[in-house]
Amino acid sequence: MTVPFKPLKIDRLTPKKPHGLVVVITGNGKGKTTSAMGMVLRASGHGLRTCIIQFMKGDLYTGEWDGVKLLGSLAELHATGMGFCGIQGNPYSHAEHRVNAQAAIELARTRMTGGDFDIVILDEINNALQLKLVDLEQVLELIKEKPELMHLVLTGRNARPEILELADTVSEVCEVKHAYQKDIEPQPGIDY
Amino acid sequence: MTVPFKPLKIDRLTPKKPHGLVVVITGNGKGKTTSAMGMVLRASGHGLRTCIIQFMKGDLYTGEWDGVKLLGSLAELHATGMGFCGIQGNPYSHAEHRVNAQAAIELARTRMTGGDFDIVILDEINNALQLKLVDLEQVLELIKEKPELMHLVLTGRNARPEILELADTVSEVCEVKHAYQKDIEPQPGIDY
Repeated sequence: MTVPFKPLKIDRLTPKKPHGLVVVITGNGKGKTTSAMGMVLRASGHGLRTCIIQFMKGDLYTGEWDGVKLLGSLAELHATGMGFCGIQGNPYSHAEHRVNAQAAIELARTRMTGGDFDIVILDEINNALQLKLVDLEQVLELIKEKPELMHLVLTGRNARPEILELADTVSEVCEVKHAYQKDIEPQPGIDY
Repeated sequence: MTVPFKPLKIDRLTPKKPHGLVVVITGNGKGKTTSAMGMVLRASGHGLRTCIIQFMKGDLYTGEWDGVKLLGSLAELHATGMGFCGIQGNPYSHAEHRVNAQAAIELARTRMTGGDFDIVILDEINNALQLKLVDLEQVLELIKEKPELMHLVLTGRNARPEILELADTVSEVCEVKHAYQKDIEPQPGIDY
Protein backbone atom coordinates (compact mmCIF):
# COMPACT_ATOMS: atom_id res chain seq x y z
CA MET A 1 0.00 0.00 0.00
CA THR A 2 1.35 3.34 -0.98
CA VAL A 3 -0.68 5.87 0.99
CA PRO A 4 1.05 7.27 4.09
CA PHE A 5 -2.02 7.58 6.31
CA LYS A 6 -4.34 4.74 7.24
CA PRO A 7 -7.74 5.30 8.84
CA LEU A 8 -7.58 4.78 12.61
CA LYS A 9 -10.36 2.26 12.27
CA ILE A 10 -12.59 0.84 9.61
CA ASP A 11 -16.27 1.06 10.46
CA ARG A 12 -18.81 -1.49 9.40
CA LEU A 13 -22.40 -0.47 8.94
CA THR A 14 -25.03 -2.95 10.02
CA PRO A 15 -28.61 -1.83 9.50
CA LYS A 16 -30.64 -1.99 12.70
CA LYS A 17 -33.58 -2.81 10.50
CA PRO A 18 -32.75 -4.91 7.43
CA HIS A 19 -35.00 -3.91 4.57
CA GLY A 20 -35.44 -5.60 1.22
CA LEU A 21 -35.27 -2.77 -1.30
CA VAL A 22 -36.88 -2.29 -4.68
CA VAL A 23 -34.30 -0.52 -6.84
CA VAL A 24 -34.99 0.78 -10.35
CA ILE A 25 -32.21 1.89 -12.71
CA THR A 26 -33.66 3.58 -15.76
CA GLY A 27 -32.74 6.29 -18.28
CA ASN A 28 -31.11 6.45 -21.72
CA GLY A 29 -27.44 6.47 -20.64
CA LYS A 30 -24.76 3.82 -20.32
CA GLY A 31 -24.68 2.23 -16.89
CA LYS A 32 -27.95 0.48 -16.07
CA THR A 33 -27.12 -3.20 -16.52
CA THR A 34 -23.58 -2.21 -15.56
CA SER A 35 -24.81 -0.79 -12.27
CA ALA A 36 -26.81 -3.94 -11.59
CA MET A 37 -23.66 -5.99 -12.21
CA GLY A 38 -21.83 -3.78 -9.72
CA MET A 39 -24.42 -4.70 -7.12
CA VAL A 40 -23.74 -8.37 -7.88
CA LEU A 41 -20.02 -7.88 -7.23
CA ARG A 42 -20.62 -5.79 -4.12
CA ALA A 43 -23.18 -8.26 -2.73
CA SER A 44 -20.76 -11.14 -3.34
CA GLY A 45 -18.29 -9.40 -1.07
CA HIS A 46 -20.88 -9.60 1.69
CA GLY A 47 -21.49 -13.27 0.90
CA LEU A 48 -24.96 -12.45 -0.45
CA ARG A 49 -26.40 -14.46 -3.32
CA THR A 50 -27.77 -12.88 -6.48
CA CYS A 51 -29.89 -14.22 -9.32
CA ILE A 52 -29.80 -12.21 -12.56
CA ILE A 53 -32.45 -12.75 -15.20
CA GLN A 54 -31.74 -10.91 -18.45
CA PHE A 55 -34.93 -10.29 -20.42
CA MET A 56 -33.49 -8.98 -23.70
CA LYS A 57 -29.91 -10.25 -23.84
CA GLY A 58 -29.18 -13.72 -25.12
CA ASP A 59 -28.03 -13.55 -28.72
CA LEU A 60 -25.00 -11.29 -28.26
CA TYR A 61 -22.15 -12.22 -25.95
CA THR A 62 -21.51 -9.91 -23.04
CA GLY A 63 -18.70 -10.18 -20.50
CA GLU A 64 -20.93 -10.51 -17.44
CA TRP A 65 -21.93 -14.01 -18.59
CA ASP A 66 -18.45 -15.24 -17.75
CA GLY A 67 -17.79 -12.61 -15.08
CA VAL A 68 -20.47 -13.96 -12.77
CA LYS A 69 -19.05 -17.47 -13.12
CA LEU A 70 -16.01 -16.21 -11.21
CA LEU A 71 -18.32 -15.60 -8.24
CA GLY A 72 -19.13 -19.31 -7.99
CA SER A 73 -22.32 -20.20 -6.16
CA LEU A 74 -22.91 -16.57 -5.14
CA ALA A 75 -24.38 -15.62 -8.50
CA GLU A 76 -26.58 -17.22 -11.12
CA LEU A 77 -27.28 -15.62 -14.50
CA HIS A 78 -29.98 -16.51 -17.03
CA ALA A 79 -29.85 -14.77 -20.40
CA THR A 80 -33.39 -15.56 -21.49
CA GLY A 81 -33.69 -13.08 -24.36
CA MET A 82 -33.14 -13.37 -28.08
CA GLY A 83 -32.04 -9.81 -28.68
CA PHE A 84 -34.17 -6.76 -29.25
CA CYS A 85 -37.55 -7.73 -30.57
CA GLY A 86 -38.55 -5.86 -33.68
CA ILE A 87 -35.22 -4.28 -34.55
CA GLN A 88 -33.82 -4.79 -38.02
CA GLY A 89 -32.01 -8.09 -38.37
CA ASN A 90 -33.65 -9.78 -35.39
CA PRO A 91 -35.09 -12.98 -36.90
CA TYR A 92 -37.52 -13.96 -34.16
CA SER A 93 -41.24 -13.28 -34.06
CA HIS A 94 -42.89 -11.24 -31.33
CA ALA A 95 -44.66 -14.43 -30.24
CA GLU A 96 -41.35 -16.27 -29.77
CA HIS A 97 -39.86 -13.35 -27.82
CA ARG A 98 -43.00 -13.22 -25.68
CA VAL A 99 -42.99 -16.93 -24.90
CA ASN A 100 -39.42 -16.60 -23.63
CA ALA A 101 -40.16 -13.46 -21.62
CA GLN A 102 -43.16 -15.16 -20.05
CA ALA A 103 -40.96 -18.11 -19.09
CA ALA A 104 -38.49 -15.61 -17.63
CA ILE A 105 -41.27 -14.11 -15.47
CA GLU A 106 -42.03 -17.60 -14.16
CA LEU A 107 -38.32 -18.15 -13.52
CA ALA A 108 -38.20 -14.86 -11.62
CA ARG A 109 -41.15 -15.91 -9.47
CA THR A 110 -39.49 -19.26 -8.70
CA ARG A 111 -36.18 -17.65 -7.79
CA MET A 112 -37.81 -14.92 -5.72
CA THR A 113 -39.87 -17.33 -3.66
CA GLY A 114 -37.33 -20.15 -3.41
CA GLY A 115 -35.43 -18.53 -0.55
CA ASP A 116 -32.03 -19.11 -2.16
CA PHE A 117 -31.29 -15.52 -3.19
CA ASP A 118 -30.78 -12.26 -1.33
CA ILE A 119 -31.04 -10.19 -4.51
CA VAL A 120 -32.94 -10.83 -7.73
CA ILE A 121 -32.15 -8.65 -10.75
CA LEU A 122 -34.63 -8.35 -13.62
CA ASP A 123 -32.32 -6.87 -16.23
CA GLU A 124 -33.96 -4.82 -18.99
CA ILE A 125 -37.42 -5.83 -17.83
CA ASN A 126 -38.51 -2.25 -18.55
CA ASN A 127 -37.64 -2.83 -22.21
CA ALA A 128 -39.52 -6.13 -22.20
CA LEU A 129 -42.53 -4.25 -20.83
CA GLN A 130 -42.34 -1.58 -23.49
CA LEU A 131 -42.14 -4.23 -26.20
CA LYS A 132 -45.20 -5.97 -24.69
CA LEU A 133 -43.27 -9.17 -24.01
CA VAL A 134 -44.46 -8.97 -20.41
CA ASP A 135 -47.44 -7.12 -18.93
CA LEU A 136 -47.38 -4.32 -16.40
CA GLU A 137 -49.63 -6.31 -14.04
CA GLN A 138 -47.11 -9.17 -14.04
CA VAL A 139 -44.26 -6.90 -13.02
CA LEU A 140 -46.29 -5.07 -10.37
CA GLU A 141 -47.35 -8.44 -8.97
CA LEU A 142 -43.71 -9.62 -8.74
CA ILE A 143 -42.80 -6.43 -6.87
CA LYS A 144 -45.74 -6.72 -4.48
CA GLU A 145 -45.07 -10.41 -3.81
CA LYS A 146 -41.36 -9.84 -3.13
CA PRO A 147 -40.14 -11.52 0.07
CA GLU A 148 -39.72 -8.80 2.69
CA LEU A 149 -35.93 -9.00 3.07
CA MET A 150 -35.05 -9.79 -0.55
CA HIS A 151 -33.82 -6.95 -2.77
CA LEU A 152 -35.36 -6.65 -6.22
CA VAL A 153 -33.54 -4.66 -8.92
CA LEU A 154 -35.26 -3.69 -12.17
CA THR A 155 -33.35 -2.11 -15.05
CA GLY A 156 -34.03 -0.72 -18.49
CA ARG A 157 -35.06 2.54 -20.05
CA ASN A 158 -38.53 4.06 -19.84
CA ALA A 159 -39.50 2.55 -16.50
CA ARG A 160 -43.26 2.86 -16.04
CA PRO A 161 -44.50 5.33 -13.40
CA GLU A 162 -46.45 2.54 -11.67
CA ILE A 163 -43.14 0.74 -11.09
CA LEU A 164 -41.35 3.88 -9.91
CA GLU A 165 -44.19 4.41 -7.45
CA LEU A 166 -43.46 1.05 -5.77
CA ALA A 167 -39.67 1.49 -5.77
CA ASP A 168 -37.57 2.60 -2.80
CA THR A 169 -34.60 3.85 -4.81
CA VAL A 170 -34.73 5.06 -8.40
CA SER A 171 -31.81 6.37 -10.44
CA GLU A 172 -32.08 7.75 -13.94
CA VAL A 173 -28.90 7.31 -15.97
CA CYS A 174 -28.78 10.11 -18.53
CA GLU A 175 -26.57 10.08 -21.60
CA VAL A 176 -24.43 13.21 -21.64
CA LYS A 177 -22.26 11.87 -24.44
CA HIS A 178 -21.30 8.47 -25.82
CA ALA A 179 -18.37 7.15 -27.81
CA TYR A 180 -20.66 5.91 -30.62
CA GLN A 181 -21.34 9.54 -31.49
CA LYS A 182 -17.68 9.70 -32.56
CA ASP A 183 -18.12 6.41 -34.47
CA ILE A 184 -16.14 4.49 -31.88
CA GLU A 185 -17.31 0.86 -31.81
CA PRO A 186 -18.49 -0.86 -28.62
CA GLN A 187 -15.48 -2.01 -26.62
CA PRO A 188 -15.33 -5.26 -24.61
CA GLY A 189 -15.28 -4.84 -20.85
CA ILE A 190 -16.82 -1.38 -21.05
CA ASP A 191 -19.77 -1.60 -23.43
CA TYR A 192 -20.43 -5.36 -23.39
CA MET B 1 -32.74 -23.36 -18.60
CA THR B 2 -36.40 -22.71 -18.71
CA VAL B 3 -37.01 -20.66 -21.84
CA PRO B 4 -38.44 -22.59 -24.79
CA PHE B 5 -36.61 -20.72 -27.54
CA LYS B 6 -32.86 -20.37 -27.87
CA PRO B 7 -31.19 -17.92 -30.23
CA LEU B 8 -30.07 -19.64 -33.44
CA LYS B 9 -26.60 -18.34 -32.79
CA ILE B 10 -24.79 -16.17 -30.30
CA ASP B 11 -22.87 -13.35 -31.92
CA ARG B 12 -19.64 -11.98 -30.53
CA LEU B 13 -18.67 -8.42 -31.23
CA THR B 14 -15.01 -7.72 -31.85
CA PRO B 15 -14.16 -4.11 -32.55
CA LYS B 16 -12.30 -3.65 -35.82
CA LYS B 17 -10.54 -0.80 -34.12
CA PRO B 18 -9.87 -1.30 -30.40
CA HIS B 19 -10.10 2.04 -28.62
CA GLY B 20 -9.16 2.88 -25.05
CA LEU B 21 -12.10 4.87 -23.74
CA VAL B 22 -12.35 7.63 -21.18
CA VAL B 23 -15.61 7.07 -19.31
CA VAL B 24 -17.04 9.47 -16.73
CA ILE B 25 -19.91 8.51 -14.42
CA THR B 26 -21.16 11.55 -12.54
CA GLY B 27 -24.40 12.87 -11.02
CA ASN B 28 -26.09 12.85 -7.64
CA GLY B 29 -27.83 9.47 -7.86
CA LYS B 30 -27.02 5.98 -6.65
CA GLY B 31 -25.02 3.97 -9.18
CA LYS B 32 -21.69 5.60 -9.97
CA THR B 33 -19.20 3.46 -8.06
CA THR B 34 -21.68 0.63 -8.56
CA SER B 35 -21.53 1.09 -12.32
CA ALA B 36 -17.73 1.11 -12.22
CA MET B 37 -17.82 -2.17 -10.26
CA GLY B 38 -20.10 -3.60 -12.94
CA MET B 39 -17.44 -2.80 -15.53
CA VAL B 40 -14.94 -4.72 -13.36
CA LEU B 41 -17.16 -7.80 -13.36
CA ARG B 42 -17.93 -7.51 -17.08
CA ALA B 43 -14.26 -6.97 -17.96
CA SER B 44 -13.28 -10.00 -15.88
CA GLY B 45 -15.55 -12.11 -18.06
CA HIS B 46 -13.44 -11.05 -21.03
CA GLY B 47 -10.26 -11.87 -19.12
CA LEU B 48 -9.40 -8.17 -18.90
CA ARG B 49 -7.59 -6.82 -15.86
CA THR B 50 -8.80 -3.87 -13.84
CA CYS B 51 -7.17 -1.68 -11.21
CA ILE B 52 -9.54 0.28 -8.97
CA ILE B 53 -8.24 3.20 -6.92
CA GLN B 54 -10.79 4.58 -4.49
CA PHE B 55 -10.04 8.18 -3.57
CA MET B 56 -12.54 8.76 -0.77
CA LYS B 57 -13.42 5.30 0.54
CA GLY B 58 -11.20 3.66 3.11
CA ASP B 59 -12.70 4.08 6.56
CA LEU B 60 -16.06 2.41 5.97
CA TYR B 61 -16.33 -1.17 4.80
CA THR B 62 -17.96 -1.74 1.44
CA GLY B 63 -18.70 -5.09 -0.19
CA GLU B 64 -16.63 -4.50 -3.31
CA TRP B 65 -13.46 -4.79 -1.22
CA ASP B 66 -14.11 -8.50 -0.83
CA GLY B 67 -16.07 -8.86 -4.06
CA VAL B 68 -13.06 -8.07 -6.22
CA LYS B 69 -11.00 -10.67 -4.35
CA LEU B 70 -13.24 -13.31 -5.91
CA LEU B 71 -11.90 -12.21 -9.31
CA GLY B 72 -8.37 -13.25 -8.37
CA SER B 73 -5.59 -11.68 -10.37
CA LEU B 74 -8.06 -9.98 -12.73
CA ALA B 75 -8.75 -7.13 -10.31
CA GLU B 76 -6.81 -5.09 -7.80
CA LEU B 77 -8.44 -2.57 -5.46
CA HIS B 78 -6.81 0.17 -3.40
CA ALA B 79 -9.01 2.04 -0.93
CA THR B 80 -6.71 5.00 -0.39
CA GLY B 81 -9.19 7.37 1.26
CA MET B 82 -10.02 8.12 4.87
CA GLY B 83 -13.66 8.99 4.35
CA PHE B 84 -15.17 12.28 3.34
CA CYS B 85 -12.84 15.11 4.20
CA GLY B 86 -14.49 17.88 6.15
CA ILE B 87 -17.75 16.15 7.06
CA GLN B 88 -18.77 16.01 10.67
CA GLY B 89 -17.08 13.21 12.56
CA ASN B 90 -14.21 12.74 10.13
CA PRO B 91 -11.13 13.08 12.36
CA TYR B 92 -8.47 13.67 9.71
CA SER B 93 -7.05 17.00 8.60
CA HIS B 94 -7.28 18.27 5.06
CA ALA B 95 -3.48 17.93 4.84
CA GLU B 96 -3.63 14.23 5.75
CA HIS B 97 -6.42 13.58 3.25
CA ARG B 98 -4.44 15.44 0.59
CA VAL B 99 -1.21 13.52 1.21
CA ASN B 100 -3.12 10.28 0.68
CA ALA B 101 -4.90 11.54 -2.43
CA GLN B 102 -1.59 12.70 -3.87
CA ALA B 103 -0.11 9.26 -3.23
CA ALA B 104 -3.17 7.78 -4.95
CA ILE B 105 -2.50 9.94 -8.01
CA GLU B 106 1.04 8.57 -8.11
CA LEU B 107 -0.32 5.04 -7.73
CA ALA B 108 -2.72 5.70 -10.61
CA ARG B 109 0.14 6.90 -12.80
CA THR B 110 2.18 3.79 -11.96
CA ARG B 111 -0.71 1.44 -12.67
CA MET B 112 -1.66 3.24 -15.89
CA THR B 113 1.82 3.13 -17.32
CA GLY B 114 2.86 -0.28 -16.00
CA GLY B 115 1.11 -2.17 -18.78
CA ASP B 116 -0.54 -4.64 -16.41
CA PHE B 117 -4.08 -3.31 -16.62
CA ASP B 118 -6.67 -2.98 -19.38
CA ILE B 119 -8.88 -0.71 -17.27
CA VAL B 120 -8.02 1.75 -14.51
CA ILE B 121 -10.85 3.13 -12.39
CA LEU B 122 -10.37 6.34 -10.39
CA ASP B 123 -13.35 6.03 -8.08
CA GLU B 124 -14.74 9.29 -6.64
CA ILE B 125 -11.85 11.26 -8.06
CA ASN B 126 -14.37 13.99 -8.91
CA ASN B 127 -15.10 14.34 -5.19
CA ALA B 128 -11.38 14.44 -4.40
CA LEU B 129 -11.08 17.24 -6.94
CA GLN B 130 -13.91 19.21 -5.45
CA LEU B 131 -12.39 18.86 -1.98
CA LYS B 132 -9.04 20.08 -3.36
CA LEU B 133 -7.29 16.83 -2.44
CA VAL B 134 -6.08 16.62 -6.03
CA ASP B 135 -5.72 19.36 -8.65
CA LEU B 136 -7.54 19.61 -11.96
CA GLU B 137 -4.23 19.74 -13.84
CA GLN B 138 -3.20 16.42 -12.30
CA VAL B 139 -6.37 14.70 -13.46
CA LEU B 140 -6.25 16.20 -16.95
CA GLU B 141 -2.63 15.08 -17.23
CA LEU B 142 -3.53 11.50 -16.27
CA ILE B 143 -6.26 11.49 -18.92
CA LYS B 144 -3.97 12.91 -21.59
CA GLU B 145 -1.15 10.49 -20.76
CA LYS B 146 -3.45 7.45 -20.81
CA PRO B 147 -2.04 4.55 -22.85
CA GLU B 148 -3.97 4.44 -26.12
CA LEU B 149 -5.72 1.11 -25.61
CA MET B 150 -6.29 1.35 -21.86
CA HIS B 151 -9.73 2.38 -20.60
CA LEU B 152 -9.89 5.02 -17.90
CA VAL B 153 -13.03 5.38 -15.79
CA LEU B 154 -13.59 8.38 -13.52
CA THR B 155 -16.49 8.55 -11.08
CA GLY B 156 -17.99 10.96 -8.58
CA ARG B 157 -20.46 13.79 -8.54
CA ASN B 158 -19.83 17.23 -10.00
CA ALA B 159 -17.36 16.18 -12.71
CA ARG B 160 -15.56 19.25 -14.00
CA PRO B 161 -16.39 20.39 -17.56
CA GLU B 162 -12.71 20.16 -18.53
CA ILE B 163 -12.86 16.43 -17.73
CA LEU B 164 -16.15 15.90 -19.57
CA GLU B 165 -14.58 17.58 -22.58
CA LEU B 166 -11.86 14.90 -22.76
CA ALA B 167 -14.22 11.98 -22.13
CA ASP B 168 -15.63 9.67 -24.80
CA THR B 169 -18.64 8.50 -22.81
CA VAL B 170 -20.31 10.43 -20.00
CA SER B 171 -23.34 9.33 -18.02
CA GLU B 172 -25.06 11.41 -15.38
CA VAL B 173 -26.80 9.35 -12.73
CA CYS B 174 -29.70 11.38 -11.36
CA GLU B 175 -31.47 10.65 -8.12
CA VAL B 176 -35.18 10.27 -8.75
CA LYS B 177 -35.80 8.91 -5.29
CA HIS B 178 -33.79 7.14 -2.62
CA ALA B 179 -34.67 4.86 0.28
CA TYR B 180 -33.01 7.21 2.80
CA GLN B 181 -35.83 9.66 2.15
CA LYS B 182 -38.11 7.11 3.82
CA ASP B 183 -35.58 6.73 6.67
CA ILE B 184 -34.51 3.31 5.39
CA GLU B 185 -30.89 2.67 6.40
CA PRO B 186 -28.18 1.75 3.88
CA GLN B 187 -28.42 -1.97 3.11
CA PRO B 188 -25.39 -4.24 2.47
CA GLY B 189 -24.99 -5.44 -1.10
CA ILE B 190 -27.07 -2.59 -2.48
CA ASP B 191 -25.83 0.61 -0.84
CA TYR B 192 -22.38 -0.52 0.34
